[in-house]
Amino acid sequence: MNVMVGGTFDPLHAGHRVLLSRSFEIAGREGLVTIGLTSDAFVQKKSHPVRPYDIRREELIIWIESMHFEASYIIECLSDQYGSALNDDFDALVVSEETFPVAGEINRLREEMGRKRVDIYTIRCILADDGKIVSSTRIYRGEIDPDGHLIR
Amino acid sequence: MNVMVGGTFDPLHAGHRVLLSRSFEIAGREGLVTIGLTSDAFVQKKSHPVRPYDIRREELIIWIESMHFEASYIIECLSDQYGSALNDDFDALVVSEETFPVAGEINRLREEMGRKRVDIYTIRCILADDGKIVSSTRIYRGEIDPDGHLIR
Repeated sequence: MNVMVGGTFDPLHAGHRVLLSRSFEIAGREGLVTIGLTSDAFVQKKSHPVRPYDIRREELIIWIESMHFEASYIIECLSDQYGSALNDDFDALVVSEETFPVAGEINRLREEMGRKRVDIYTIRCILADDGKIVSSTRIYRGEIDPDGHLIR
Repeated sequence: MNVMVGGTFDPLHAGHRVLLSRSFEIAGREGLVTIGLTSDAFVQKKSHPVRPYDIRREELIIWIESMHFEASYIIECLSDQYGSALNDDFDALVVSEETFPVAGEINRLREEMGRKRVDIYTIRCILADDGKIVSSTRIYRGEIDPDGHLIR
């Protein structure tokens, strides 16, 4: 099936890897995964610095290619929370528990626009060794590494 | 992957067919779908009569076999809302938008019991020809047929 997933992926941590692996898994052999990657302008709102789009895109492609997933994929630039998820015809959005509210909002807006709602696949939280969630902010602060292992 | 889905499936209508098809699709070739089928005692709370467990089970098996899905499946008897979803090790629960709250409750209870949370795949509402949801209650009332077509 055709699925959409989005993120900043800086760095590509354990939570992102589960999110993307599941997206490819549910898309299946003949499926397509559309990955929305946030633009540099969009991520200026983040509380910590983010590496440039092209570097994040390259890291993403290198990891995806190393995984030899069966589904096809495209990467599109996300300049807002929604990207093409409001207008495109696809089957399912893949989100984390943290971004689940955005998926509900996308379905509400799609319905208002007369488009069909989409399925929502919510990945469980991926936890670091200390039982707290793996996040880019925690990695930036030097608390954990991208695999969720404690640094201090 | 291993997915769980549940229902009364009486009759097996268009919404159930999407729910089950998606469950098999995301489970994939080597996956397992555990289908919880409500017991006769459990469905006595329903607002309308429900056919016996064995008849519902047979209808379910005949339809699944006709679809030639790739994943394996087992049918287990559900005597409450949760069945083995609280204790078993699996990857994702597949629910409709209406039963989404039960999935959240299952994750909350799993966490309390020290088990890992599971992913939740929420199927969009399946609508009848009149734009209202396809449901067993509407079929029982004679408003729509199991494919969601208006009877009157």
